[in-house]
Amino acid sequence: MKRVAVLTSGGDAPGMNAAIRAVVRTAIYHHLEAVGVMRGFEGLIDGDFVPLNRASVGGIIHRGGTILKTARSERFKTEAGLDRALFQLKNAAIDGLVIIGGDGSFRGGQKLYEKGVSVIGVPGTIDNDVAGTDETIGFDTAVNTALEAVKKLRDTASSHDRLFIVEVMGREAGFIALEVAVASGAEYLVVPELPFSLGRLCDKLHDTRARGKTHSLIIVAEGAMSAATLRSELKDTAGYDARVTVLGYIQRGGSPTSFDAILASRMGAFAVESLLDGKKGMMVGTVAHQMSLCSLSDSWQVNKILSPEKLELVEKLSI
Amino acid sequence: MKRVAVLTSGGDAPGMNAAIRAVVRTAIYHHLEAVGVMRGFEGLIDGDFVPLNRASVGGIIHRGGTILKTARSERFKTEAGLDRALFQLKNAAIDGLVIIGGDGSFRGGQKLYEKGVSVIGVPGTIDNDVAGTDETIGFDTAVNTALEAVKKLRDTASSHDRLFIVEVMGREAGFIALEVAVASGAEYLVVPELPFSLGRLCDKLHDTRARGKTHSLIIVAEGAMSAATLRSELKDTAGYDARVTVLGYIQRGGSPTSFDAILASRMGAFAVESLLDGKKGMMVGTVAHQMSLCSLSDSWQVNKILSPEKLELVEKLSI
Amino acid sequence: MKRVAVLTSGGDAPGMNAAIRAVVRTAIYHHLEAVGVMRGFEGLIDGDFVPLNRASVGGIIHRGGTILKTARSERFKTEAGLDRALFQLKNAAIDGLVIIGGDGSFRGGQKLYEKGVSVIGVPGTIDNDVAGTDETIGFDTAVNTALEAVKKLRDTASSHDRLFIVEVMGREAGFIALEVAVASGAEYLVVPELPFSLGRLCDKLHDTRARGKTHSLIIVAEGAMSAATLRSELKDTAGYDARVTVLGYIQRGGSPTSFDAILASRMGAFAVESLLDGKKGMMVGTVAHQMSLCSLSDSWQVNKILSPEKLELVEKLSI
Amino acid sequence: MKRVAVLTSGGDAPGMNAAIRAVVRTAIYHHLEAVGVMRGFEGLIDGDFVPLNRASVGGIIHRGGTILKTARSERFKTEAGLDRALFQLKNAAIDGLVIIGGDGSFRGGQKLYEKGVSVIGVPGTIDNDVAGTDETIGFDTAVNTALEAVKKLRDTASSHDRLFIVEVMGREAGFIALEVAVASGAEYLVVPELPFSLGRLCDKLHDTRARGKTHSLIIVAEGAMSAATLRSELKDTAGYDARVTVLGYIQRGGSPTSFDAILASRMGAFAVESLLDGKKGMMVGTVAHQMSLCSLSDSWQVNKILSPEKLELVEKLSI
Repeated sequence: MKRVAVLTSGGDAPGMNAAIRAVVRTAIYHHLEAVGVMRGFEGLIDGDFVPLNRASVGGIIHRGGTILKTARSERFKTEAGLDRALFQLKNAAIDGLVIIGGDGSFRGGQKLYEKGVSVIGVPGTIDNDVAGTDETIGFDTAVNTALEAVKKLRDTASSHDRLFIVEVMGREAGFIALEVAVASGAEYLVVPELPFSLGRLCDKLHDTRARGKTHSLIIVAEGAMSAATLRSELKDTAGYDARVTVLGYIQRGGSPTSFDAILASRMGAFAVESLLDGKKGMMVGTVAHQMSLCSLSDSWQVNKILSPEKLELVEKLSI
Repeated sequence: MKRVAVLTSGGDAPGMNAAIRAVVRTAIYHHLEAVGVMRGFEGLIDGDFVPLNRASVGGIIHRGGTILKTARSERFKTEAGLDRALFQLKNAAIDGLVIIGGDGSFRGGQKLYEKGVSVIGVPGTIDNDVAGTDETIGFDTAVNTALEAVKKLRDTASSHDRLFIVEVMGREAGFIALEVAVASGAEYLVVPELPFSLGRLCDKLHDTRARGKTHSLIIVAEGAMSAATLRSELKDTAGYDARVTVLGYIQRGGSPTSFDAILASRMGAFAVESLLDGKKGMMVGTVAHQMSLCSLSDSWQVNKILSPEKLELVEKLSI
Repeated sequence: MKRVAVLTSGGDAPGMNAAIRAVVRTAIYHHLEAVGVMRGFEGLIDGDFVPLNRASVGGIIHRGGTILKTARSERFKTEAGLDRALFQLKNAAIDGLVIIGGDGSFRGGQKLYEKGVSVIGVPGTIDNDVAGTDETIGFDTAVNTALEAVKKLRDTASSHDRLFIVEVMGREAGFIALEVAVASGAEYLVVPELPFSLGRLCDKLHDTRARGKTHSLIIVAEGAMSAATLRSELKDTAGYDARVTVLGYIQRGGSPTSFDAILASRMGAFAVESLLDGKKGMMVGTVAHQMSLCSLSDSWQVNKILSPEKLELVEKLSI
Repeated sequence: MKRVAVLTSGGDAPGMNAAIRAVVRTAIYHHLEAVGVMRGFEGLIDGDFVPLNRASVGGIIHRGGTILKTARSERFKTEAGLDRALFQLKNAAIDGLVIIGGDGSFRGGQKLYEKGVSVIGVPGTIDNDVAGTDETIGFDTAVNTALEAVKKLRDTASSHDRLFIVEVMGREAGFIALEVAVASGAEYLVVPELPFSLGRLCDKLHDTRARGKTHSLIIVAEGAMSAATLRSELKDTAGYDARVTVLGYIQRGGSPTSFDAILASRMGAFAVESLLDGKKGMMVGTVAHQMSLCSLSDSWQVNKILSPEKLELVEKLSI
C-alpha cells in the first residue's frame, strides 16, 4: 500500500475535518501518500483529487464542515458513474479509500468494494443512525448544540409560563431527540421508534400543570412528526397553545466537542491502520469504547435501538 | 419616596434579571424598599407583589428570562383593569414603578403615569426597536446568539456549496438582521426598512457565483418577509435551491453578554435614581454611551433608523 | 425504605446538581422522601438537613456547582465526628444515603457503611480518577472547558509563532490532560503516569520547527509538574521561550455538557434504585455504557489507567 | 492611490482578521490593490509581502488571531530598520499603509508617517487603552471571555463558600477589570487607576460576610497588582484564605463577538476610505458610535479614563 485517498459524503458533521486530519497524518506516519477527493462521489467520478500533506490538515481539527466538501451524487448510482470512479481510482494509483459519511455513503462504498477497491468506512453523521458503532462522529456535538438551544428556550418558556415544542434532527431515528430530552429535563419526548399517543401527552401535560409546573418542553424528532403538526394537534384536541422551534441546520455545524474531536481522530487513524492490515469492505466503529470493525453492510442492515434505560429516565425525572 | 416596585412586561430579553437586580440593590442602597410585581400588568391588576431584598436578587445577574415573569395583558387595556392596577399600587403604598419592557409596555406605563403614578421605563427588548435609546437590554445578546447560529450554518453552506436563507427576529424592524449581516459577512440582507428587489438579489447571487463564491448567505428580518416566502420566490423566479433556517425563540434566551449585563445594571440603577430625583413618565436610555432620559411616548413616536454606514458595509464587504 | 438523603462532598463538579435532581425525582417516583444534607460531611455532623421535593430541584439540571454545597471535613475524620453523623442520620430517620463525590468522599462513606448505614456512592469529580467507572460526572465538561480555552490559546500561539504550555487539572492523574491533548491536537503531553524526558521533548520541539511548524502546544497535567517548572526547564536547558497558562478553577465550573447531564441523571436514578434493591457500600458506575455497581473501596483500590491508544494518538497525529 | 498595504502589530486581538478582511475588500471595492505585510514591522523590514485578493480574506471574519501574524520588532526601533522598511514600501510601490495594533504600533507608524508614508492606524487591542476611540477591536470579546470564566468560578465559589481573586489582563489600565466587575456582579475591584486600600477591602469583606454572603469575588487588573500578591496580603493581614485564578492568554483569543466583528469591519473600511480621502498620520476610532479620526499621537498622549459611573456601580450593586 502506497497511496490512500479520503472523501467525505452525505450530510456534513462536526468532526469530519478531525477525521480527515487523522487519516492524512496517520498515513504519513506510516509512510503512505494521502490524497483528498473533493465533493464525495462526485469528485471521485470527476477525478477531482488533491494531494494532502501534514500541513494541509494543520489547524482544521476544530473546524466544522469538511474541507473536502461533500455532495449527493446521482451519477454514482449509475453503472457509468461507478465505472468512471473505478477508472479514476486506478488512474491515480490509489490503493485504499477511506469514506467518511453515513449509511448512504457506505452503500456507495460497498459497490466500490465489490469491484475490488479497498474501502474502509468511517461513520460521520450527526444522526447516530449507523449500526455497528456506539457513536458516530458529530453526534455528541449536535446533541450539545441542540441542548444549548433548548436551554435558551427554557428561559422564555419559564418567563412566559409557556409550552414549547422543539423539533430536532435525526432523520428516521430518535437518537438526538432522546439525548436532548434527558439532558434538558424535557417533559415529553416524541420519537419515531415509539408509538405516539396524543391522549397520553395531553394527560401528562394536564398532570404537570396540576402539580404546579407552569411551563413544559416537548422534544420531537423530525422522523416522528413535525413540530408544526404536533402543535396543531395539541391546539385542536386540547386547546394547548404551544410555541414551536425547529432547530434545523445549526445542529450540523460548529466546532466539534472534545468527544467528537477525539472519536474522529481515533477512527481516522484506525481506518488507515485497518487498510494497512489488509482489511477492506469494513466500517470502523467504537463498541464499549474500543475500536472495532464490522462489515460495511452491517451499518444499514443491523437495527440500532434507543436505550430503554434513557427512555425511562425521561418519564421518571420529568415528574 | 419609600417603596419602589419593578415589573417586566412584553417579550422576555436577556439582561432583564440584571436590571431587576440593579433596581432592587440601588433601591436598598438608597434606603428604599423594593417590591416585585409578578407577570407584568397582569400581576399589577391582581396585586401579585413580592418583597425583594438584597438576597432575592443574588445570583440572577447572568440568568436569562425574568424571575418576575412576564405576560401580555388584555385586561390592562380596559378601564376596569387600569383602575384595579391603580388601586393595587395605592394599596401597597408603592411610590414609584419601574417598568422593564418594550414600547408596548411603555404605552401601558404612560396610562399609569397619566393617572399620577411615578413611572420610569427601562427599555428591555431584543429588537432594539425603541427610540430614545441607542441600545435596548437584550439586543447585543440576541445578535450574538444569532451570529453563533449563522456561523454554524456557514460550515454546512460551505461544505455543500449551498445558498442559505436565515430568518432572524426583530418584529417590524431590521436592527438584529443588520448587525448579524455585517458581523457574519452575509452576502445579502433583507430588512423591512428598505425596498426589496428580487431582481437585484438574483443579479447579486449570479455575480457572486461568477466570482467563484460557491456558497452564499441571506439574512432576512422577520418583519420584511418569511424565509420560506423568499425561498419560494428564489426558486420560482431563478431556480435557486436555497436552504432555510428560522432561528426563532433561541434569540430571546440565554445568559446576557457583558454588554447587556452592564447596560441592564446601569439602566436599573439610573431608573431608581431618576425616581429619587422626582422624574416620572420617562424612559431611561443610553445616548452616545451616556445615561439619558426621554419622555415615555418618545419610545414609540420617534423614528429610529438603521445605520446607513452599516447598510453600506454589507454591500462593500460581501464582494 | 422511606427516606433517602443525598450529599455532595469534595470538589464540586458540573453535573452534581443534575445528579441531585435525579436522586430526588427518582426517590419521589418510588414514593420515598428525599432529604438534602448541606455542606457534605460537615452538614451531616451538624444535622443540617433540608427536605427536597419535586420543585426544589426544578431548573437546576443545567446549573454548575452544587445547591447542597460541599466542604472538606476534618471533624468527620475523628471518632466523635463519625458518631455525631451516625446520630444525626438515625435521628432524622434516614434509611439510605447517596454520596456524590470522589474517592475521598467514598472513604468517608465506607466508614458510615461499616457502621451500618446504607450508603451508595455516585462518582462526581472532574478528574475521572475514580476506578470502577469509565466516566465520572463532570469530566466531560471539564475537558470541553479546557479545550475551549486551548483553542483560544492556539489563536495567539499561531499569530505570534509561539510555544505555549497549558497546565490542566486532574489531581494525581492525567485523564483530563490526555483528552485535551488529543482533542486539541497538542504537540506534546506531560502526565504523571508516564516518565517525563526533557531531552525527548526538546528533540520533538526541534523536529517540529524543522518541519515548518511555527507554534507548538504542550499540555501538562498538574499532577506531573507545574507549567512554570516546565517553562523554566525548557528555558534553562534549550533556550525555548514558552508562554504559560494555568487554566485553574474554571475547569470545575459551568453548565454540564449533555453527556454529563445524562450521566448524572442516570447515576442519580440508579443510586436510588440500587438502595431500593437493598444494595449498600457500593458505588454506581458506567462500564461499557451500562450502569454497574462495585464496592466503594474499589474506587480507590483499583488502578485506573490511561488509554494506550489515545497516548499513541498524541504522538502520531501531532507530526 | 493604487496599492494599499495592511499589517498587524503588537499583541493579537479577536477581530484583527475581520479588520484585515474589511481593508482588503474595501480596497478592491475602490479598485485598489491590497497587499499584506507578514509579522508586523518585522515583515515590513524584510519585505515579506503577500498579495491579497477577495478570496484571500474569505472565511476569516470569525477567526481569532491574525492571518498576517504579528511580532514585536527590535530592529524597527533602529534607524537602519526604519530605513529598510521605507525602502521596502517604496520598492513595492505601496501608496498607503494600514496599521492594526495598539499605541506601541502607532508610535512605529508615526515614524513612518514622519518620513512621508501615508499611514492610517486601526486600534486593535483587547486592553482598550488607546485614546481617541471609545472602543478598540478585541475589547468586547476579551471582556466576554473573562466574564464566561468568572461565571464558572462563581459556581465553585458558591458551592464551597469561598473567596476568589481573579486576575484579568489590561496592561497598565483597568478597562477589562471594570467591565468584568460590573458584568459579573463582583464584590470588589482593584484597578491601577484607583488607590488600593487593603483595609477598605477587608472591611468590605467583613461586612459582606456579616450580611450573609458566603462567597465573594475580587477582580484585579494585572496593572494594579498580581492576584498572588493580593492573596498573600489578605492572608497575612486578615487571615482570609482566597483562591486565585489568573485568566491569562485565553483573553486574547477566540472568535470575535458581533460587536468586535462589526467594529473591525467598520474601522477597516473607514481606514481605506480615509486614505482615499488623503488622510494620513491618523488613527480611526469610534466616538459616540460614529467613525472618527484623530492624530496617531493622540492615541498615547491623551489620557483615557475609566467611567466614574461604572466604578460607582460596582460599589452600589455588590451590597
